[in-house]
Amino acid sequence: MNPDKTLVELAHGAGGRAMNQFLREIIFPHFSLNRFKQGIGLPEADDGATMPFDGSEMVISTDSHTVSPLFFPGGDIGKLAAAGTINDITMMGARPLVMTSALVIEEGFPISDLEKILASLADTAAEDQVAVIAGDTKVMPRGGLDQLIMCTTGIGLAEKGKVIVDSGAQIGDKIIMTGTIGDHGIALLANREGLSFETDLVSDVAPLWSLVQPALKIGGIHAMKDPTRGGLAAALNDIAKKSGVGIWINENNLPFQREVLAASQMLGLDPLQVTCEGKALISVAKEKADAVLHAIRKTKYGKSAQVIGEVKKEQQGLVIMKTEVGGSRVIQHPWAEAIPRVC
Amino acid sequence: MNPDKTLVELAHGAGGRAMNQFLREIIFPHFSLNRFKQGIGLPEADDGATMPFDGSEMVISTDSHTVSPLFFPGGDIGKLAAAGTINDITMMGARPLVMTSALVIEEGFPISDLEKILASLADTAAEDQVAVIAGDTKVMPRGGLDQLIMCTTGIGLAEKGKVIVDSGAQIGDKIIMTGTIGDHGIALLANREGLSFETDLVSDVAPLWSLVQPALKIGGIHAMKDPTRGGLAAALNDIAKKSGVGIWINENNLPFQREVLAASQMLGLDPLQVTCEGKALISVAKEKADAVLHAIRKTKYGKSAQVIGEVKKEQQGLVIMKTEVGGSRVIQHPWAEAIPRVC
Repeated sequence: MNPDKTLVELAHGAGGRAMNQFLREIIFPHFSLNRFKQGIGLPEADDGATMPFDGSEMVISTDSHTVSPLFFPGGDIGKLAAAGTINDITMMGARPLVMTSALVIEEGFPISDLEKILASLADTAAEDQVAVIAGDTKVMPRGGLDQLIMCTTGIGLAEKGKVIVDSGAQIGDKIIMTGTIGDHGIALLANREGLSFETDLVSDVAPLWSLVQPALKIGGIHAMKDPTRGGLAAALNDIAKKSGVGIWINENNLPFQREVLAASQMLGLDPLQVTCEGKALISVAKEKADAVLHAIRKTKYGKSAQVIGEVKKEQQGLVIMKTEVGGSRVIQHPWAEAIPRVC
Repeated sequence: MNPDKTLVELAHGAGGRAMNQFLREIIFPHFSLNRFKQGIGLPEADDGATMPFDGSEMVISTDSHTVSPLFFPGGDIGKLAAAGTINDITMMGARPLVMTSALVIEEGFPISDLEKILASLADTAAEDQVAVIAGDTKVMPRGGLDQLIMCTTGIGLAEKGKVIVDSGAQIGDKIIMTGTIGDHGIALLANREGLSFETDLVSDVAPLWSLVQPALKIGGIHAMKDPTRGGLAAALNDIAKKSGVGIWINENNLPFQREVLAASQMLGLDPLQVTCEGKALISVAKEKADAVLHAIRKTKYGKSAQVIGEVKKEQQGLVIMKTEVGGSRVIQHPWAEAIPRVC
């Protein structure tokens, strides 16, 4: 298809190693200019950028949302966009304040569906007291775009020096996963493939400021990331690589919904590589881990939070999983998210 | 096509009365929540939103760019996106500081073209010392999107109380247009239609902070707007309506390139309704008008600036043009931008 590597591939936008390489080689070289030397800019490839501002750190994050179908079990593109942007700001340890929403709509799109999507965006933003303050509306002629995409940008504030970055994990930290793994991607794909389960499998899409805020108050959080494109495997590898540490996971402790495991097997997917949209992966100081876990479990979206592993000196830059049967294996950084148009 | 008004139409994204109505009826009702009571939010439909911040006003603006073709005489989508966002911030009287860029690319898009677009985005942002600090890259499967769109969001700062809004024009103000009218839209359309001219007609797309900054220093600017979708006619009507004043324009003073007039006639377009992408429309206190005009003419993009009219008490909410032959006519607020995918 693309033997000489001159064309953009699906994998270039799919959150794994292919995307990281594409960003480093093609995108970042154009944006080395960064006037905010103390801030975190594009080439850090963190959840958002930061810029020092009057004694605080402003955190900015942007995302385009291309999910298909637009309405899926547990949510829609409006909820996904609001939650995704709130979570990217939140993962930097910042309180999300405002967001913008730019719509691109295909001519002939039903206005009633648009209204549902906007209501969903507004409700999700309001859940974490985030105001939608600016927007844009463009319409593409029929055939120029598959239905609708939206781009949201969020702005938040953190105390100076309190921004949380992927590279902050420390030896001895505990790794907390705030809930079950792979729900969004599998719910989406099962719906597309027409699979049905005894119970309803729905996306976990949710805005996480109310989950993270109590944990931030306790302190000791060294790194935090939402495992979206590329799933838990990509998020763990990002933290391990950027922090220069080994992350050791216990397979026994990984929280899964039974339906996700069943569907993954049926569809030939590794659920560790599948997108979550309402979960955080947290590297927290050992002595704070119990209190943080306890606080998270008391929140609406954190009831199935688990300590899933720890940070060690051994196997720097790698993610190792101790398996249920007592062996261990390297969790690879996926080449790309297995499911197209998942977010 | 859409007899019962249940489907999104091209006109809903085309900057005229149709879009204003669509925004008021369909979009804004979902976003009445605005925690920043002192700020300017979505329902003001200004160039950007504002939010009070530590003694300053933060100005935020977002835009999706769907221009076709991606490369056009005088620019490309990268330049258009950077300039468009810089200009929206600038039109609020704020210094643009940083921007984000979210790309959505069709699978199979040439990487060499992508690199040209990114270089162009970066160069245009750098021209006004704006740093591109965050981004996102999504790839849509072949056929899901016509080539590439990009969404940029900008953040700027204005002094407290110094934000310039569409509703600020005052009786007695002079109206300055900073250059020739309709160049972008006509250059784009002429290129699509294969028209050729004796001289090269190119888009006026340009970032305007360096043009506006000296004018802001002089002071007296009461309203400012870049006449993009819907052209000068839409921008003038927006200011007249929101400010509750009459705007009286002299046809004799309107700056046009000869090729734009010729092509407009050939294509059956009113050039007053055609998009500019590197121009500002400024309502300035009478006693400052000469100094502001002089300062603008000394800048790179302001050489053909003109006083084109004035603000009067008569004909509140309307735009009246005194014609070359001595008559007068109302300049209608266009129903929609005449040219699809112009920005």
